[in-house]
Amino acid sequence: MISGRTHIIAHLGVPTESFKAPMIYNPYFEERGIDAVVMPMGCEAEDYPAFLRLVFRLRNIAGALITMPHKVCTVGLLDESSTTVKVCGACNAVRRDAEGRLVGDMFDGEGFVRGVLRKGRRIEGASALVVGSGGVGSAIAASLANAGARRLGLFDTRAESAEKLANRLRTHYPELKVVTDGKDPKGYDIVVNATPLGMNDGDPLPADVNRIDPSTFVGEVVMKQEETPFLAAARARGCMIQVGTDMLFEQIPAYLEFFGFPSTTPEELRRLAKIRY
Amino acid sequence: MISGRTHIIAHLGVPTESFKAPMIYNPYFEERGIDAVVMPMGCEAEDYPAFLRLVFRLRNIAGALITMPHKVCTVGLLDESSTTVKVCGACNAVRRDAEGRLVGDMFDGEGFVRGVLRKGRRIEGASALVVGSGGVGSAIAASLANAGARRLGLFDTRAESAEKLANRLRTHYPELKVVTDGKDPKGYDIVVNATPLGMNDGDPLPADVNRIDPSTFVGEVVMKQEETPFLAAARARGCMIQVGTDMLFEQIPAYLEFFGFPSTTPEELRRLAKIRY
Repeated sequence: MISGRTHIIAHLGVPTESFKAPMIYNPYFEERGIDAVVMPMGCEAEDYPAFLRLVFRLRNIAGALITMPHKVCTVGLLDESSTTVKVCGACNAVRRDAEGRLVGDMFDGEGFVRGVLRKGRRIEGASALVVGSGGVGSAIAASLANAGARRLGLFDTRAESAEKLANRLRTHYPELKVVTDGKDPKGYDIVVNATPLGMNDGDPLPADVNRIDPSTFVGEVVMKQEETPFLAAARARGCMIQVGTDMLFEQIPAYLEFFGFPSTTPEELRRLAKIRY
Repeated sequence: MISGRTHIIAHLGVPTESFKAPMIYNPYFEERGIDAVVMPMGCEAEDYPAFLRLVFRLRNIAGALITMPHKVCTVGLLDESSTTVKVCGACNAVRRDAEGRLVGDMFDGEGFVRGVLRKGRRIEGASALVVGSGGVGSAIAASLANAGARRLGLFDTRAESAEKLANRLRTHYPELKVVTDGKDPKGYDIVVNATPLGMNDGDPLPADVNRIDPSTFVGEVVMKQEETPFLAAARARGCMIQVGTDMLFEQIPAYLEFFGFPSTTPEELRRLAKIRY
């Protein structure tokens, strides 16, 4: 029940029609009696810089979820950025600190990391191959680095994307070994598909599953089907796997904590969500 | 259930804590399956002119309800104003037309007018005494003029307020007879208290009830109690009366029509509202 005491989480992007966050956060807020609401706001790119500043001047703003096409632009509008934002060159969560400064973070990759850890696998000291260096691949690589990975392999069909991401990672994580020598998954502790391959029937697999060790943890960002052909093949080899929606529901608690709300488990969020995958 | 397809009615004012509109509109929208939500936004006065423009650039904005302290300031930000807005010098409803222009109106007084008409009394050709020439008194006077009243008596303890309102009415309604010769209710078809008298125990009555004819229709803006001492005294004389909350619930359909939503009756809105008076 929205009232004059309700806090707003502005969900900023355009178009808004496909937004899922309201159907995940709002049922949780209602269940827990948290007086807050995620409200989609279809802000045009040209209006966004001014609107972001002003929406954060509202007395009842609690934060903002940022999505396309504003994630990159947001970085230049922040007063303070996390290392993950700097590595990704993108931001999808903004809050106002006690001094009114805008603080940004990026939790897409944190969802992947939390899912890996919850399934009992280590990231600290591990090696990981991230296939795809676009927005979500950058976020996953940045969060793996932040979580203590020792070695990252990056691959993108646009080699320059992978190289640029590698250089940003090396700048912010000098101890991290970053390689861009292809997408052979052999020998990695973790392999993740961060490309859209698997969205459409007949897509090739993002990497050669026959070269993945059974001890490797294999993850996926594609949410279109619960288990993509890539994951199915990895599971058939004996690999532990993580589906795309795990990454989605694992990242919500990170946002809740960032905004200062009581947090919860991905399981509770999944149970309460008014969407099904 | 808020989604990416939900339309926003921004409820702009500060502080927001006492806002009632969300608890009236939102249950109605939910009941009718209208995908819209009234969302309080605590906008500071200094940010308001820029924020109003930008919030109306959102793709999913359906309109704005304007409250204190922005009602007067809004007049200067509109591309098109109703006569009522011009008479009142205040605006509490804004929508965007097909060309993106901001169109403003003011429906506080329309609620009073609709209530009078619904109770079977005429306003066209009638005389009315409006006691109090502040925001709500101005709105009632403007709406009575718009509805065809022939003669208005205005009174305010600050005589200048009544005189200024009288002059604005004369400018926009040259046929209307406007007098500012005191608050004797004798001979008026309609008498309305538009002062805060009745909010507190022991307040004097706003006008001399002994001078009100039994055939006079007597209305009230004070909502603190269902029947104020003023209304009780008028009813005891045999007058037909209108309570303050009638004016509130009668004006909501006017807003719904202005924003382009399916309209309804005050009775349905009152039944569904999550507030009780």
